[in-house]
This record gives sequence, C-alpha cells and structure tokens, in this order.
Amino acid sequence: MDLGTVVGFVLTFVNFLVAIILGGAGLMAYWDIPSVAIVAGGTFCCTIIKWPIHTCLSSVRAFLKTIFFRTQDYQTTIDQMIELAEKARRESIFALEKVEIADPFIKKACNLAADNRPPEVINSILEMDLSSMSERHKNVQMVYAVMSEDAPAMGMTGTLIGLVAMLQNLSDPAAIGPGMAVAILTTLYGAMWANLFCLPVMKKLESRSQEEQKNSVIVITGILGIVAGENPRLIREKLNSFLAPGQRKSGEEEVPGKA
Amino acid sequence: MDLGTVVGFVLTFVNFLVAIILGGAGLMAYWDIPSVAIVAGGTFCCTIIKWPIHTCLSSVRAFLKTIFFRTQDYQTTIDQMIELAEKARRESIFALEKVEIADPFIKKACNLAADNRPPEVINSILEMDLSSMSERHKNVQMVYAVMSEDAPAMGMTGTLIGLVAMLQNLSDPAAIGPGMAVAILTTLYGAMWANLFCLPVMKKLESRSQEEQKNSVIVITGILGIVAGENPRLIREKLNSFLAPGQRKSGEEEVPGKA
Amino acid sequence: MDLGTVVGFVLTFVNFLVAIILGGAGLMAYWDIPSVAIVAGGTFCCTIIKWPIHTCLSSVRAFLKTIFFRTQDYQTTIDQMIELAEKARRESIFALEKVEIADPFIKKACNLAADNRPPEVINSILEMDLSSMSERHKNVQMVYAVMSEDAPAMGMTGTLIGLVAMLQNLSDPAAIGPGMAVAILTTLYGAMWANLFCLPVMKKLESRSQEEQKNSVIVITGILGIVAGENPRLIREKLNSFLAPGQRKSGEEEVPGKA
Amino acid sequence: MDLGTVVGFVLTFVNFLVAIILGGAGLMAYWDIPSVAIVAGGTFCCTIIKWPIHTCLSSVRAFLKTIFFRTQDYQTTIDQMIELAEKARRESIFALEKVEIADPFIKKACNLAADNRPPEVINSILEMDLSSMSERHKNVQMVYAVMSEDAPAMGMTGTLIGLVAMLQNLSDPAAIGPGMAVAILTTLYGAMWANLFCLPVMKKLESRSQEEQKNSVIVITGILGIVAGENPRLIREKLNSFLAPGQRKSGEEEVPGKA
Amino acid sequence: MDLGTVVGFVLTFVNFLVAIILGGAGLMAYWDIPSVAIVAGGTFCCTIIKWPIHTCLSSVRAFLKTIFFRTQDYQTTIDQMIELAEKARRESIFALEKVEIADPFIKKACNLAADNRPPEVINSILEMDLSSMSERHKNVQMVYAVMSEDAPAMGMTGTLIGLVAMLQNLSDPAAIGPGMAVAILTTLYGAMWANLFCLPVMKKLESRSQEEQKNSVIVITGILGIVAGENPRLIREKLNSFLAPGQRKSGEEEVPGKA
Repeated sequence: MDLGTVVGFVLTFVNFLVAIILGGAGLMAYWDIPSVAIVAGGTFCCTIIKWPIHTCLSSVRAFLKTIFFRTQDYQTTIDQMIELAEKARRESIFALEKVEIADPFIKKACNLAADNRPPEVINSILEMDLSSMSERHKNVQMVYAVMSEDAPAMGMTGTLIGLVAMLQNLSDPAAIGPGMAVAILTTLYGAMWANLFCLPVMKKLESRSQEEQKNSVIVITGILGIVAGENPRLIREKLNSFLAPGQRKSGEEEVPGKA
Repeated sequence: MDLGTVVGFVLTFVNFLVAIILGGAGLMAYWDIPSVAIVAGGTFCCTIIKWPIHTCLSSVRAFLKTIFFRTQDYQTTIDQMIELAEKARRESIFALEKVEIADPFIKKACNLAADNRPPEVINSILEMDLSSMSERHKNVQMVYAVMSEDAPAMGMTGTLIGLVAMLQNLSDPAAIGPGMAVAILTTLYGAMWANLFCLPVMKKLESRSQEEQKNSVIVITGILGIVAGENPRLIREKLNSFLAPGQRKSGEEEVPGKA
Repeated sequence: MDLGTVVGFVLTFVNFLVAIILGGAGLMAYWDIPSVAIVAGGTFCCTIIKWPIHTCLSSVRAFLKTIFFRTQDYQTTIDQMIELAEKARRESIFALEKVEIADPFIKKACNLAADNRPPEVINSILEMDLSSMSERHKNVQMVYAVMSEDAPAMGMTGTLIGLVAMLQNLSDPAAIGPGMAVAILTTLYGAMWANLFCLPVMKKLESRSQEEQKNSVIVITGILGIVAGENPRLIREKLNSFLAPGQRKSGEEEVPGKA
Repeated sequence: MDLGTVVGFVLTFVNFLVAIILGGAGLMAYWDIPSVAIVAGGTFCCTIIKWPIHTCLSSVRAFLKTIFFRTQDYQTTIDQMIELAEKARRESIFALEKVEIADPFIKKACNLAADNRPPEVINSILEMDLSSMSERHKNVQMVYAVMSEDAPAMGMTGTLIGLVAMLQNLSDPAAIGPGMAVAILTTLYGAMWANLFCLPVMKKLESRSQEEQKNSVIVITGILGIVAGENPRLIREKLNSFLAPGQRKSGEEEVPGKA
Repeated sequence: MDLGTVVGFVLTFVNFLVAIILGGAGLMAYWDIPSVAIVAGGTFCCTIIKWPIHTCLSSVRAFLKTIFFRTQDYQTTIDQMIELAEKARRESIFALEKVEIADPFIKKACNLAADNRPPEVINSILEMDLSSMSERHKNVQMVYAVMSEDAPAMGMTGTLIGLVAMLQNLSDPAAIGPGMAVAILTTLYGAMWANLFCLPVMKKLESRSQEEQKNSVIVITGILGIVAGENPRLIREKLNSFLAPGQRKSGEEEVPGKA
C-alpha cells in the first residue's frame, strides 16, 4: 500500500470538501447531473475513440494496481539476486530452475540462466522485455496525459453550452445567477478532473515505471553476474552502485545468514 | 468496421445532444447559419491555402476509410506469412508469384521474392515503401492537427465579430442576451470541431499508422526469412516476438492444417 | 498562378465580409483607424526591430512571388533532366554549356558538368547552394511565424488601452457599448491578421520550400547520373523514385519523341 | 549568504505589500483562510501524490540550504587543487589521504588518488558521482517546476468554487463584490506562489546546480593532473581555462606563498 | 548606429502615444505609480533572484551597446583578413604582431599566428573563445526571454490585486470605472514591457550574436589560411563563400590598392 498516494487523494478530497462547505453555498450547489454527463461523458467518448479498447482497460488496471501499491524496493531485489547467486554457487546454476520466485521477470531470468543460454542471448531477451514493458507503460501514461487535456476542453464546451442557454433567457433576473453557476460547474469539473486526478496519476505512473525499469536493470546485471560465475560479494558490490550511498548494505554480516 | 470509433462518435453526439436538451434553451438556440459559416468556412479556407489540394483530399479519404475500418491484426498477417513460407517450401519460391493476396504490400513482397532478387534489394525497396507510406500518413495527420488549432481561432474571431455587433446596439436590453448567445456560438462550434472531431481523428490516424507500420515490418521480416529458406516454424517464432506474450500462437497444431 | 492560394484568400475575405454584414452592425462598425494603427503599426515596428531590413524585404517578396506562383512540378524537372541526359549522350557533356534553361539551379548544374568538374565537387557545390537556399527560406518563414505572435499581442495591448479609456468615462451609459466595441476591434484585427494571413502564408512558404528542395535534389541526382554517363532510361527510373507510384511515367514512348 | 536571493525576496515582499496598502482596501481584504487552504492545501496534496516523500523533503532542504548560500567560487576550488598538487609534489601522492578538506567531493578525489587507483577508474567513479548529483538536482528542480503549474491551477479551481457560491446567492447586491473579491483571491495566491516563489527558486537551483557541476569538473581535471604528476603551474593553466579571461590568476606570485 | 532598432523603438513609442491620445482619455489616465511599481518592481526582483548579479549587469550593457550599434559587416572583416594576408606574405608572419587592430578577436588571432603556434592549437584556442562568447550571449538573451514571461505575470498579479480592492468597495458606483481602469493598467504595462521591449531586444541580440559568430568564423578561417601561407586571392575566394552570391567582391582590382 502506497501511503503517499492514498493520503494525498484523501487529503485533496477533504481539502476541497471543506473549502466548498466554508464557501457557504452548500454541497448541492456543486452537483449537477447534466454537467457531470458533459465532462465525464465527453472525456470518456474522446478516450475510447482515441485509444484501442485494450489500452483503455490497461489504464484502469494500472490506476488500481500500480498507483496504490509500492514497487518492490531496490534493496529487496538486490537481496534476492544475492540469494540466487549464493544458491547457484553452492548447488549449481541448474538449481535456479526450481527456485520459487513470485516476480515473473526474475523467474524468467532464472529459467534462461538454468537453460544454460549464452549471456548475450539472456541479455538481449531480457532487454527486449524491459523495453516493451517501458513502451506499454508510456502508452498508459499517455491516456492520462491526453485525458488531462480533454477534460478541461469538455468543461469549457459545457460552460459555453450553459452560457448560451442562460443568455437566451435573461428575462428572469433571479435565474441568471444559478444559470451561470451551473454553466461554470463544467469548467470546475474539468479542471478538478485534470489537475486533481489525471495529472497526479500520470506523474505517479511515470515514477513507478522508472522504478520498475531500474529494478529490471538490477535483475539483468545480477543474472549476468551469476551466469559468469562471479562471487556473490562482488555482485552485491556491483548492484550497490544502483543505490544512493546512504542506502547501501555492506553485505558482510547478513548474506550468509540469509542464503 | 471499428466499433470503438463508431460507438465513440455516436455516444459523443448523443451525450452533447442530451446535455443541450437538458439545458432547456431548445436545440434551435444552438444553431446559427452565419456562425457555422464563419467557423466551417474560415477553417476550410485556411486549410486549402495551407495544404496542396491532393493532401486535403487524402485527409478526407483517410477519415472515411482509415477511421472506420480496422487494420488487419498482426496475428492474421503472421498466419499469412507462414502460409506463404509453407508454400515456398513445398513448391518453390517462384510459386509465390501466382498466390492471390489482397494486400498490395504483401503482394509486392511476394513478387520481389519470386523475381529472385537479393535479400538486401528486397529489404531496401520495401523499407522505402514503408517510409514513404509513413510520411504520407504524417501529412494527413498534420491536416487534422492544424485544423484543431484553426477552428478555435475562427471561433474566437467570430465571437469578437458578434460582440462588436452586439455592443454597437446596447439600446435594446432584450437583444443583449440573444446577441451575446449568438456571439458565443462560434467559440462553441470551434471548440467542438477541434476537440470532438479533429483531435480524436488525428489520434486515431496516428495509432492506425503505427499498426500499419508494424504490419509492414512483420511482412518484411517474414519475406526475408522465406527468401533465406528458413523453416516456417522458425519464422513464426521470429514473427511472434512482435506480439505481446499473451497473443502468441505456438504454431504446433494449426499451421499444418492451414498450409 | 496557384489557384488554391488565390481562391483560399478570396473565399476567406468573402466569408468574413458576409458574416459581418449578416451580423447587422454594418461594415463601418468594424473599421477604426486608431485600432488599425495600433495593430498594424505595432506589428510593423516589432518586425523592423527584430529582423534586419533585407530579411523584411525578402519576406514581402516571398509573399508576392512564392505564394501565388506554383513551383515547377517534379515531373517537368525530371523530363528536363532526361532531355539533358539525352543531349549529353547524343552530343557530348560539353554540349550542356550551350543549353538554354530558365531555372538558374539547373543551369548551374549544367555548367559544372560541362566544366568537367569531378562528381564530388559538383555534388558539394550544389548541396551548399541547396542548404543556403533552405536557410534563407526558413528565415522568411520565421518572419511570418513571429508576426503571427506579435499581431495578437498588439491586439490585446490595444484592447487594454481602449478599455482603460472606456472605464475612465462610465458616466455616459450610451458610450459604453461603442467604446467597448472599439476596444475589442484591435483584438479582432490581431486575431485576423495572425490566423487568416500570417499562419497560412507561413505554412504555404514551408511547403513551397520543401517542393523546391525536392526539385533541387532531383536535379542533383540527375546531373550526377549524367556526369557518370548513365543511360537516360536508368536515370529516369532513379528519378521516378521521388514520385508517388501513380505519378510515374514509364519513359518508354515519349522520351525519344522529346529529345 | 547569497545577498541577491535574500534581497530579492525581501524586496518582492515589500513591493507587493506597499502596492496592496496603496490599493486602499486594507491588508485584511487580501487574507482569506479557506482560499489559502485551497491553494496551499491543493498544491501540497498534488505534490505528495506526484513525488516520493524523500524527493519532497529534498526539495525543502534544497530551498533552505542551496538558495541562501553561495556555491564555493571557481577560483577557490582552483586554489585548493593547486595546493593539493603542490603537496603531492613536495611529499607524495599518498600524502593526499591525510589532508583535511571539508568538501566531500574533493576529499573523495584525494582518497582515490592516494589509493593509487588508475586514472580512468578515478575519472569514471567521479563522473558517476557527478552525474548522479546532477540527476538528484534535476528532480528537485522538477518539484518546483510542477508546483509552479499546480498552484495557478488550484487558484483557478478555487475561483470557480467561489464564483459558484457567489452566483447562487445574487439576491443581496452588497454581498456580490466581497464574494467575488474572495473568489479572485485564490487565483491571486496561485499566481503569486508560482511567479514570486516557485519559478525564481527553480531558476536559482538550476544555476546553483550548474555551478556545482562546473566545480566538480574542475576537481576532476585537477586530480587527474595531480595523478599524472603534472607541474602545479601547468595544472593551474589548465584549470584557468574554466574561468572567464578577467578572472584568471597567473599563479606566479601566490601559489608558493600558499602551499 | 543601427537605424532599424532606433527607428523601430521611436516609431513604436509614437504609435502607441498617438493611439492613447486618440483614445480620448488623456495621457494621465495611463499613468499610475503603484501599478508601475508592481510590474517594474516585481519583474526586477524576480530577475535579481533568478540570475547572478553580473549576468543582470551584462544584460543591461548588452542592451545599450549591442542593440544600437551594428556588428562589423562580413565584407569589412574579409577585407581586413586579406590585408593581413598580404602583409604576412610581403613581410613575414611575425609582422602580424605589430599590426594595430581594434577588434580584440582578430588581434588575438594575429598574436597566435605571430607566436608561430601550430594551426590546430590556434584553431582550438579561437574556437573555445568563440563558444564561450556564444554561451555568454545566450545567457543574456535568456534574461530578456524570462523577463518577457515575468512582466505579464506581474501585470496579471497587479490586476488581481486591483480587482480585489475595487470589488471590496462597490458601494460608490462612480469609483468602479476608474478603479477597474487602474487595475487593468498593470496588465497593460506587463504586455507592453514584454512585447514592445523584451522580445524585440531578445530577438535582436540573437541575430547580433549570430553575426558575431559568423564574423569570428571568418577570422578563424582567414588566419588558418594565412598561417598555411596560402595566396591572399585563394583566401578571399574561401572567405567569399560565407557571403550571399550578390555580396561577393572578386578581389581583382582593389585588394592590391588596399594592401
């Protein structure tokens, strides 16, 4: 569970809820079904025209899964690779086939190593997986980026529709204010959807994607070290270079206890 | 028929129709011939000045054809290439000349192979076709991209024209509202034309173009494998690398049945 | 004469004229000398500060000449090169010196060939001419691009000046409307100048420049073929690759009749 | 202490304070708790969703430390490197280990030199440190850049919320002005936060980062010269090339007195 | 003296002065000390925070010196280089040391040549000077570019401050107009400062910088020719390639008379 994201979204919600209540017009003044329909409906329609259906679904899945759960941290990945290196050294590289690992990327790396494939083949296959993963991630980020432009556009369109309706009917002065208020609501919805949802989600997906890519690079570097039969301590030293200086473990006392 | 696009455009239309009707000013309040003339006419004029006539016509054709029909999916292309590989193996590479294939790009690839041209010549000729196709596609996308900037500009120009007319004639208070409403209509038309038509079409053309390019790359890779006399199963394995893992066929049971 | 450009500008003019007349405020409501002075004068001043005087003059010349006249089409250029190739083959390469050709670039290419210069020298000299031509074209396009940003800025400045004048004098309610209308005129002028003139001209200059560059590349490829003593039919085949498939001539029946 | 930054922020504060007082509405007219909550709270929430917590904290630290304190100037760094070069020449390169130096980057360079590592290893290790520093700096700058876009967006959202509240309640004419004033406050807060705080801080961090990078390049060039056993005067001449001509010391009279 | 710049600025001033007078509100309606303070003060503060003090001063110097005075034209530079080549040929390359030349860059080139330095050293030293000059120029241009974004932002901030003040005090209808007028003035000042001053100056500095760079390249090419002992006529032919075809001198009749 990623606390930053959850707390951030909850705080945003509370923040604007309180602001609206303090505004004194009551919550219901900010709720208008046709306005919601214009902004949500219009943005939804644009999205399903612009992207193939499976990309749309991936973007929903990415929101639910990627946003709220943390990527495995680099230290854990390094520890896993060191364990595997120890095992390969104690038993043999073929023992990697039977190791139980949840992460499919590490599992695939182990299988390739256990199949005794040459290092350059292992590297190129894993690199291709890495780059196709990064491309899929970019597609999903684009969905949110384009939505963050569509939503305000729909909002403005809705406001223009509302303004025309209001201006055609200026005879009742008491209706002008609420008419205008409703017209403005679509712009408000569009701005909130874009700035409080789409852009933060896009940014988060971006940094998650970078983390996953770095994790994959650690795995690739590690498995190549294992295949080359390098000393686990040397592998840890190499993998440590991916961490900031303060995060590194020396690997002296604990690796034996673990492996 | 591409359901996403059709459903998307129909839903967009219904969505805004309902929103306008719920707005209560009546549909006719949103229809003004001079406003349509300013936005549609102005955008049309800018487009025919900016682009040569044949590019304008291509962009209309691309809209009608490309948008509503799906590109052949990668799996079908791969199956076709495997069939050709089987045929070339069973009979001979010269048999490819007589195969009946609807897709002109695959047909051209077959002819080049049957002419016994060297692989690097086949590759360079097909690559040039691919790159000139991609350039033609980009030109057409640009037409929609530039239109999506021109339409709101025309809309704003029309609103300014309407505002000046209204402001010159403030003596009749009852005319202010409708005058202003009509002035705003051009901005509304411009925003709708840009956001609900031009941008979605442009984006769709873009992803269609990417799909066609990927299809062409599959064909090129396949024909080079056939020319090199590779085993059809090996060719399928190679071409499968263009698919996401879940979409791949193993090629064990069906290729024989098909070829 | 380039019909697209002329028809486009005439239609634009008619379109907005009709729209203004239909608006009902009369043409004179849209004409205000000080507003014209602010937008046209301000944009003019910015342009002469920003660019050296000769670039300003080139941009006027480019507008008059390049916009309204079509570039020679690729087919004509190819035919000319083939004629030259035939002549060089029948007589000798030195005969190219006496050929009368209007296009200075082709003339220069002929002279270099007739001087018996080595191919790489011919290539580098013509390439340098091509790249300096393309740079001059870009400078001129920039003048229109920058003007299309300056004009709306001057328009907004003028509107602010008009608004201040109007707001200082709110005591006469009858003057508010016309005062505001005049203030808005500068924004209207700026938007029209940018969107109906500068941007279309810039875009047209851009595509003209690309056409001229492609023509020059055809000439360079052709003259190098002539210097290498290649068969005119082979040269035509090479140059045809610059055309879209549907535009190509086979060169069987007509080249002899022409040369 | 960096006078420019401090004086700049103080002057900005005074400037707008005086402007507000001269405006005549009183300072309290510009203070509204819910408006502050919307802009500050909204921007804060977006920031903690978009960035991992440690990046947020770094950006605060960077503001406090980097903004108000000057980077060591290049001349001082050069002098330090020359001192080290003198020492290494008089005693030996191993003497660099015991030198007391505050700057951790110079200290690390000395240790690497004293460990007798080969020059290319020293270079690659220090370059990696340099590039990871520059990446950390860019992350922090991005926080301020993104905030400078979020704050105005929150301001506009707040204004829309305020406008809706005001428009729902037009019956009391006396409340319209203050209601509208409060609505506008969020836009004002957003604009001030972005333009008077985020953007200047971002720009300052950017130039600080460039200074630190240049300092590091001086250190790397210097230590490689020391390791190569070059004459301190030659090293100074080399390092001087990083300075503008007017800032260079000849190194004749003072280096001996210092070392 | 650069007539284009001076005439441009004077015309701009007259243009807007006349427009304001014709607007009929009187010049004093456009003058408000607090508004000037907000825009000028705010932009000034942002600038001194964002840039080190010496960059700020350079940008003022660049405005005064570079804007109003023309760069030496390419023809004069070429003539100077030819004179030097003649001198080096008649006397010796060591004679270049005693030549009196105002331009420090040509002087430096002469000294390096007279010191008998190898061509690649001369080239690299002069290239480094050229690139550091170009970097200094870019910094100064950035100051004006950033100012052209800050000034409108300050203008908008000032308008919001003025609006809040006006809205808090709607009870006196006669005060609304002038209050609003004053509020708008800051936006007007910001727009004028950005569009009529900063952007033209930036653009001018940019083209000046390009001219100086081209001049320096001519000098470098020339001095390398002199050092290589090339014939002055050959050198002129080489340097002429930097000029547009119409500007070239043949160098037959005049060079002897001059040298």
